[in-house]
Amino acid sequence: MNRTIQNLLQHYRIPLKEKFNGKPVFNTESSADRMETKRVFMGGVLETYEKLIGQMLKELPTPSPQTAGSSNEGLASAITAGPGTASDTRSEAGGDVRMDLNYILTKVQELKRHKYQEQDKLLQRLQALKHIQMDNFVIQSKALWELPRLYEEASSLPDDIRMQRRRRRRRRQARRDKTRPRA
Amino acid sequence: MNRTIQNLLQHYRIPLKEKFNGKPVFNTESSADRMETKRVFMGGVLETYEKLIGQMLKELPTPSPQTAGSSNEGLASAITAGPGTASDTRSEAGGDVRMDLNYILTKVQELKRHKYQEQDKLLQRLQALKHIQMDNFVIQSKALWELPRLYEEASSLPDDIRMQRRRRRRRRQARRDKTRPRA
Repeated sequence: MNRTIQNLLQHYRIPLKEKFNGKPVFNTESSADRMETKRVFMGGVLETYEKLIGQMLKELPTPSPQTAGSSNEGLASAITAGPGTASDTRSEAGGDVRMDLNYILTKVQELKRHKYQEQDKLLQRLQALKHIQMDNFVIQSKALWELPRLYEEASSLPDDIRMQRRRRRRRRQARRDKTRPRA
Repeated sequence: MNRTIQNLLQHYRIPLKEKFNGKPVFNTESSADRMETKRVFMGGVLETYEKLIGQMLKELPTPSPQTAGSSNEGLASAITAGPGTASDTRSEAGGDVRMDLNYILTKVQELKRHKYQEQDKLLQRLQALKHIQMDNFVIQSKALWELPRLYEEASSLPDDIRMQRRRRRRRRQARRDKTRPRA
């Protein structure tokens, strides 16, 4: 996969000062994250790559049997041509961008399906929340009616392990302070 | 809070057959969820309530000193009037909807802030992913460049506890089958 990405970067070339402007597209540097938070966020990153690569594929010129000529500034080589002409389209100008993008897309989708299935389901459910019709009177009424149960549930969910540990530590500290009074 | 919601439901009244059509607005019935998944989803539900109540407040007629008259079909009573007239606006038509909604909103926000802070941060980060400019060439190039590192990270994150347990159980089972050969 790394080699494919290197190929693609020949096509998606940007000035170094844009590349290294200290603003990555995906910031995963919250080292304070719990593992599950990391997993959910990573699920989101993979989903974003899926859409992004889909968009990049859409922006490529549509395949056509006539891919010769240099009017497309090297883009012609990016086109998957019909059967039999594949070798022609893999020109020296960076190889078959479409084929490479499709390969990367498959790799991303495989990882998502095998390791991020549960996170993916959660993301879909969160997404569905965005589509609730907030200006619909029936929805408003029903949501009000459901609120006491949900509020109760949200209030009584146990805190996460880290929170529990912090509290336990504090309790232990308090006990220690009690048994060993300062001079 | 329950009493406030009962008050509000006098105003947000819908036919019983719509209320009990078996389609709740918020479906939290995935009992298979891990606790952290539940927490993240609940964070999303609270966020949705925050927006929904904001929308409901926006739909109320704007406060004005003249709240008398019945042209607003009972909605007039929902208006928070200027100081001194509060008792007038709490009419028999369901009390002060605006005030009740504001109270509920505060309760939801408090719970969110005290118990769902980390989930909220995660939701913001997931939301930011939706705003990545997918059709921007620079973004496309940078994202490609970042992919090997992210793919590596996403591939090597440890599976969740449940997955680990399932694997351990399978291993144990295999060992048992080995030591106790069937007759």
